[in-house]
Amino acid sequence: MKSWLPIPPGSHFSLANIPFGIISTTAIPARRPAIAIGAHVLDISTFAKEGGFAKLQNFPSDKLAVFSEPTLNSFAALGRPVHRVVREYIRDVFREDTPYPEALQTNEALKKAALIPLSEVETHLPLAIGDYTDFFAGRNHAHNVGTLFRGAANALQPNYNHLPVAYHGRASSVVVSGTPLHRPVGQVLPAPGATTPVFKPSGRIDIELEIGTFICKGNALGHPIPLKQADDYIFGYVLMNDWSARDIQQWEYVPLGPFNAKNFGTTISAWVVLADALEPFRTQGLTNETELQSYLREERKDNVLDINLEVSLSTAKGNSRTITRTSSKNLLWSWPQMIAHHTISGCNLRTGDLLGSGTVSGFEEGTHGSILEQTKAGKFPVEIGGGEVRNFLADGDTVVIKGWSGSNEDGLVGFGECSGQILAAVTQV
Amino acid sequence: MKSWLPIPPGSHFSLANIPFGIISTTAIPARRPAIAIGAHVLDISTFAKEGGFAKLQNFPSDKLAVFSEPTLNSFAALGRPVHRVVREYIRDVFREDTPYPEALQTNEALKKAALIPLSEVETHLPLAIGDYTDFFAGRNHAHNVGTLFRGAANALQPNYNHLPVAYHGRASSVVVSGTPLHRPVGQVLPAPGATTPVFKPSGRIDIELEIGTFICKGNALGHPIPLKQADDYIFGYVLMNDWSARDIQQWEYVPLGPFNAKNFGTTISAWVVLADALEPFRTQGLTNETELQSYLREERKDNVLDINLEVSLSTAKGNSRTITRTSSKNLLWSWPQMIAHHTISGCNLRTGDLLGSGTVSGFEEGTHGSILEQTKAGKFPVEIGGGEVRNFLADGDTVVIKGWSGSNEDGLVGFGECSGQILAAVTQV
Repeated sequence: MKSWLPIPPGSHFSLANIPFGIISTTAIPARRPAIAIGAHVLDISTFAKEGGFAKLQNFPSDKLAVFSEPTLNSFAALGRPVHRVVREYIRDVFREDTPYPEALQTNEALKKAALIPLSEVETHLPLAIGDYTDFFAGRNHAHNVGTLFRGAANALQPNYNHLPVAYHGRASSVVVSGTPLHRPVGQVLPAPGATTPVFKPSGRIDIELEIGTFICKGNALGHPIPLKQADDYIFGYVLMNDWSARDIQQWEYVPLGPFNAKNFGTTISAWVVLADALEPFRTQGLTNETELQSYLREERKDNVLDINLEVSLSTAKGNSRTITRTSSKNLLWSWPQMIAHHTISGCNLRTGDLLGSGTVSGFEEGTHGSILEQTKAGKFPVEIGGGEVRNFLADGDTVVIKGWSGSNEDGLVGFGECSGQILAAVTQV
Repeated sequence: MKSWLPIPPGSHFSLANIPFGIISTTAIPARRPAIAIGAHVLDISTFAKEGGFAKLQNFPSDKLAVFSEPTLNSFAALGRPVHRVVREYIRDVFREDTPYPEALQTNEALKKAALIPLSEVETHLPLAIGDYTDFFAGRNHAHNVGTLFRGAANALQPNYNHLPVAYHGRASSVVVSGTPLHRPVGQVLPAPGATTPVFKPSGRIDIELEIGTFICKGNALGHPIPLKQADDYIFGYVLMNDWSARDIQQWEYVPLGPFNAKNFGTTISAWVVLADALEPFRTQGLTNETELQSYLREERKDNVLDINLEVSLSTAKGNSRTITRTSSKNLLWSWPQMIAHHTISGCNLRTGDLLGSGTVSGFEEGTHGSILEQTKAGKFPVEIGGGEVRNFLADGDTVVIKGWSGSNEDGLVGFGECSGQILAAVTQV
């Protein structure tokens, strides 16, 4: 499928994608929805106001205002069948053989107003996030980190293969790609075996390579979402970096889980790749030999997504290296299983809730989704180049996650970047 | 101080209180702010529209619309100096010797429109909650439960006296007093020592007696709130029941903390008692012999609140007993310490965030804030009366928490009730 709009080779935003986000521009500072296409965005607020959706079928006509809101929540709440017709309609608008040339292709005034170079827009959080839950479904990561924290014998807890372990994360500090974060300060143990903490900037800032899922509709409190219906609750996906202060984490996390080690910031990519766009890239996840409880039993084998993932680290001195290459298929649990488990207690999800997959790591060296695993808790530094090595992140380091599925021939379905820089601690200690 | 409005003896809502909430009525179904006074509420949306605040000084005149919103967030965001003048003005309006008789006392039409019997209003969540964080500052409870879960030797973790342990809770399932909750189903171990879970309705539904604090203003991400400024961030307090499924908790909580054991519901009382109203009831909390890090060191000794707390349990058969009497002073950490710790990493709080204290228990029998402690993990049932006993909660049980400070002579500063009933599980297993 080709577009009348030139789409640069290697663009994550092909006709096969059509991801949704929230933008602002110098000319119009109000936040509003857009889709990314090639090296441009289509401002769908302007597009909607100027009649671009006139030929859109199967869309509730009194709901066009959702495209003028400062978040995607109201659009998401319309449900997957509506996301589908809107995404397919916009794709058709951009097709070389578009049935709707007057919607944009031949409307020079609207093209000028609504088609904006990506480089000229600022992106914002795509949805207002209600609750953020972080799962722990990357079994390779769980095993590697469990070994480092508790030894190989206790690496995976007895519950790990029985249920998708998760904890409630901090929603307020989820930020969009490009937002720098200050190194947190806190309590850490000064040496192995110490029992009295010291107060200092964290010396072990790490990344966690994750996939995030936005929820499009809610369930009533007390009424779990059955696994077979769970796909209908997924709006789409983003890349996620769940930054972690490992030294703070190790001291604080028993018995109630990570707190300050995680709540200083979580970065997500700006463009939500809709669930439909990634349907062609289903594959089989990690095998679970455990007999599962009925509410977690899944018939389909292609239960996870195969998204190519890359993590690169760039230093303030300008050295840079790709430190991780892996796939999002390295998960023990599928999104429907995670949603079914989250709600089996009766917990209610809401439109805009964000779920994290847990850190995605492969089996081999060079496929680890955290620096903790790569350096064996800091013991074997990673070479970045130019003589620079890293046990953990240094001030000024920038971490960029990229993720995409598909091929250049059929059009990439990618996320763009999930990027963040670590700045020096603010607090004087 | 006396009121021209008759205030029934023993009312929690004296002139010394003036708590804020959100109501609706049959006549006006829209949610709107109100204050509770004696056996009435004053609908401050109507009061504001009809000029009741005409004599209010030191209030930003363009902000009267905050009293017509469906939550208290915008009012809270105005900050403590504004809460203070509004609360004192409303108190003065109700004083026997009010300087503003025309504001309400002598305005029969407004009294009829805005002064509504408490029994005729429905209450709702007072604020839209951003994030909900639950602390673990009740050291007696932490010690008792730690002993039951991990043995006396490991009852308190090494970090317990060094930092206010906390975890991120679930905001979506916080409900207002009076909302029934269904018993959650989930994975539990069938017997001590078992390693394979079964799937069933929880058999160990418990309460947690807590105080909740609403945050009125936020800090910027990356910029901690110093302990000395933390009081300015507190809007007010509510009673909280952090319902817990102990069997689900025990199987799931290692290593990332409680999840489904807690996320099926948390109940708060409807009326927010403003921080100022409880200032006279400061006292000293539990003594901490540990040398604290600089950011947690507190000069004032009267660092916690002395609120009388009572928990009663009523069965479906109509038997009822007060099972707990204690005080909120049984906390190791103060609210300013909790806020300073929460944000020391740079984590940002926002208006409407809810913090829980952790379960409040005294030292003696009959002062425990959870049934787990009272029954020693279900081994020694509590007698309710009429031949009924409880190891944990049964379907149909209603738990009511009451809390108040002060005396009948000076006027009680109370919360009313924090009530909830456990209904049978919905899910067929």
